Amino acid sequence: MTKPDQNHLDNLKSIAGAGGWSDDPDVLAPHLVEWRDLYQGKTPLLLLPDSSEKVAALVKYCHDNRLPLVPQGGNTGLVGGGLPDDSGNEILISLKRLNKVRLRDPLNQTITVEAGVILADLQAMAEEMDLYFPLSLASEGTCQVGGNISSNAGGVGVLKYGNMRDLVLGLEVVLPDGQLWDGLTGLRKDNTGYDLKQLFIGSEGTLGIVTAATLKLYPRPLNTQTALLAIPSPQAAIELLTLARKMSGDLVTAFEIIPRIGLDFLVRHMDATDPMETAYDWHILMECSSSLDRLHLDLENLFQQIMETAMEQELVLDGVIASSEQQRDNLWALRENLSEVQKFEGGSIKHDISVPVSKIPEFLEKATAAVEQAIPGIRPVPFGHIGDGNIHFNLTQPEGADKAAYLDRWEEVNKIVHDIVHGLDGSISAEHGIGRLKVEELTRYKSPLALDLMRKLKKTLDPANILNPGRIVQND
Amino acid sequence: MTKPDQNHLDNLKSIAGAGGWSDDPDVLAPHLVEWRDLYQGKTPLLLLPDSSEKVAALVKYCHDNRLPLVPQGGNTGLVGGGLPDDSGNEILISLKRLNKVRLRDPLNQTITVEAGVILADLQAMAEEMDLYFPLSLASEGTCQVGGNISSNAGGVGVLKYGNMRDLVLGLEVVLPDGQLWDGLTGLRKDNTGYDLKQLFIGSEGTLGIVTAATLKLYPRPLNTQTALLAIPSPQAAIELLTLARKMSGDLVTAFEIIPRIGLDFLVRHMDATDPMETAYDWHILMECSSSLDRLHLDLENLFQQIMETAMEQELVLDGVIASSEQQRDNLWALRENLSEVQKFEGGSIKHDISVPVSKIPEFLEKATAAVEQAIPGIRPVPFGHIGDGNIHFNLTQPEGADKAAYLDRWEEVNKIVHDIVHGLDGSISAEHGIGRLKVEELTRYKSPLALDLMRKLKKTLDPANILNPGRIVQND
Repeated sequence: MTKPDQNHLDNLKSIAGAGGWSDDPDVLAPHLVEWRDLYQGKTPLLLLPDSSEKVAALVKYCHDNRLPLVPQGGNTGLVGGGLPDDSGNEILISLKRLNKVRLRDPLNQTITVEAGVILADLQAMAEEMDLYFPLSLASEGTCQVGGNISSNAGGVGVLKYGNMRDLVLGLEVVLPDGQLWDGLTGLRKDNTGYDLKQLFIGSEGTLGIVTAATLKLYPRPLNTQTALLAIPSPQAAIELLTLARKMSGDLVTAFEIIPRIGLDFLVRHMDATDPMETAYDWHILMECSSSLDRLHLDLENLFQQIMETAMEQELVLDGVIASSEQQRDNLWALRENLSEVQKFEGGSIKHDISVPVSKIPEFLEKATAAVEQAIPGIRPVPFGHIGDGNIHFNLTQPEGADKAAYLDRWEEVNKIVHDIVHGLDGSISAEHGIGRLKVEELTRYKSPLALDLMRKLKKTLDPANILNPGRIVQND
Repeated sequence: MTKPDQNHLDNLKSIAGAGGWSDDPDVLAPHLVEWRDLYQGKTPLLLLPDSSEKVAALVKYCHDNRLPLVPQGGNTGLVGGGLPDDSGNEILISLKRLNKVRLRDPLNQTITVEAGVILADLQAMAEEMDLYFPLSLASEGTCQVGGNISSNAGGVGVLKYGNMRDLVLGLEVVLPDGQLWDGLTGLRKDNTGYDLKQLFIGSEGTLGIVTAATLKLYPRPLNTQTALLAIPSPQAAIELLTLARKMSGDLVTAFEIIPRIGLDFLVRHMDATDPMETAYDWHILMECSSSLDRLHLDLENLFQQIMETAMEQELVLDGVIASSEQQRDNLWALRENLSEVQKFEGGSIKHDISVPVSKIPEFLEKATAAVEQAIPGIRPVPFGHIGDGNIHFNLTQPEGADKAAYLDRWEEVNKIVHDIVHGLDGSISAEHGIGRLKVEELTRYKSPLALDLMRKLKKTLDPANILNPGRIVQND
């Protein structure tokens, strides 16, 4: 790898053209820090191309001159995948100016947008077409479609609509040697050889830079029911999920677990009102949605019946159904602030794990016991997408403990939790990806054969190793 | 590539063990002919392993000795992908004895089965779990899960549930060098690096042999409405689809187009009763299904209202709703016999194309005009999955024409149709794959860059080029 000299930088600026680059520290600053402050990067140059052809020309120059290049979307990632390292050698390329809509095709129920379009804007465009784009996550006001694709984003709608991978029909990608691959297609069926787009979805910008995508749209949900339900145990949660999926005709769109301690934190630090009269240990935020109108489906009544049946079967102990949009927002705010609120209680060691849904109870039992044994007084706050088998197994420090000393044990605790996940055939990164944060750990949990295949793919597509080098897999 | 000599064959027999191979011509016969009779193959040895480890050992031997190996599922493919060529050098490996269920996991809504399980048996197993496996195609009584995965099978449920690719959570695969990759996972979210399973889905056994899979299951449909609708035009069809998806709350599970000439053929040759009183040009077989019970959703009423609205908007001219299971079967039989019935009218030149749904009317208009110009009197019988943009654009010979002379123009007609498809950003193989039939054509329509990427993937995974060599891509 070459360190970019002034000559390289001048050449890149000239390719990027006026407005297509910056080295102003104030402009660069927000692109060089991750919002959780885990990483800070340095770069000699921020590239800001506004067309796929510009991206291709810039990548080609970097390829031909062996300059390392890091692609960045909305910079909302959690694993350091979109930040340059601190060597000051890696050039940063932001896709944010590449943000046009290429094609609205309502009869095909698709939209083709460039990588820099912000997710919330995409959702709004779909709504203008009287359709719906289902990907939804906390950072949707900032994150970009290209980043969502590169990280195979998850979020709260996965149960019904799948991950971002399931929403992509076609891609346009700049390959690591600067060639532009036009794989933009609105086809729902195409078996003409290997499905090349799959290579680029979820590969975190290591195999190519996504510049545009054709995405599936759906009929809009017209009717939503939301409840917070107290449940006796995680085992009851997954039985409730099965019951609700069956009784609702598969209309469960969100199924999130919230522990008692999380509600307590919210009441203590964020002025939240606990909607429960009795303090139970576990809660499910359940939502059903339908794009059928009320004339044809009385979702309110159906939802009530699901709850009644669940109470009869002792899967639900108590519950609050949102009776207005405001109440719905309040229930969702409890869920959405669970990550944030932990900081008021000191250090938090985080995990983004998944196991088969059926193994969630066993995971919670084993992992809780193991971390309590390692650090007496530790306060687990497991929450999140239990309907997908995905738990954010976050661990708040013991009361009164020293924060720094606690956080120093991050890796040790990760290993305890991830060993249990691995033993249950789970994933150490369900939705956040590998980036730089988990490269080392990946080598512990992936089979040598899988790692070897990954390295071979990286070498095949990026033999010069210039694109997001060292992320996901270390090439030799 | 080496021609297998007696020594090689003896060694393979000894690895396969008793019952694990055959060279009896009677046993081999059904494995060496395609049901459309387009291909006939020869092989010195049929391998019949009953475990993944056996498959791995056999592949390793072939790899180490550079012997070409062709994997075969239920042998229902249409493009020669699962047959040995006529050189007599290619060894055939059938997965049919690898047909155990590995794991039923109702709470995770998954099932893990081996490659040789027959699709209809898998559907029945899901039903025993009070769940539903949605892949459904004409050959479901014979085709096998491994073949469905390797060919990324489509069929009649794609509109709601997607292709086979969308139903796979994890895979076990024997790689071309005989290593066994255990990617069997029931996880719905797993962002730990490149999604390796995608390489093997739809790659027709050229990159690895699928030996087992973990598949998604869904709540069972409890309520189905089916109708045959006469429509004024293909444009009306796609507007009807949009209307029906919206009004039904996305419950449209099948949406198939049937032309007048197809119904006429069925009446003439298969004793079918034409359900329409008036002879319209175009028909849609539309089905809506829901896993909600009748208490909560009056699907019959809803379906009726969709039809009434469609008639008001002049998207539907007339219609017959199935009022019994028998009537439903009769309507589906019309659709299912459309391929078969054409043989009574002489030669039929076939296409399996897709375009974006919005471009279907333009495709039909242009392609019909072009083939009529090339062969006056030609009788197009376009039918199939219009809801997915996938039309089987089959062309029956002019009345009284010479069948052989007509079929001799197969490639010429293919080129006319596929050029139009290509101009509309479509696919020349929507669901049947490339196999041997379309290898040449693929080089005409895929970009050199895409072909180059495919060849690189093949070389990376199968550098010795022993696995299904020459299918999909020709390696140099």
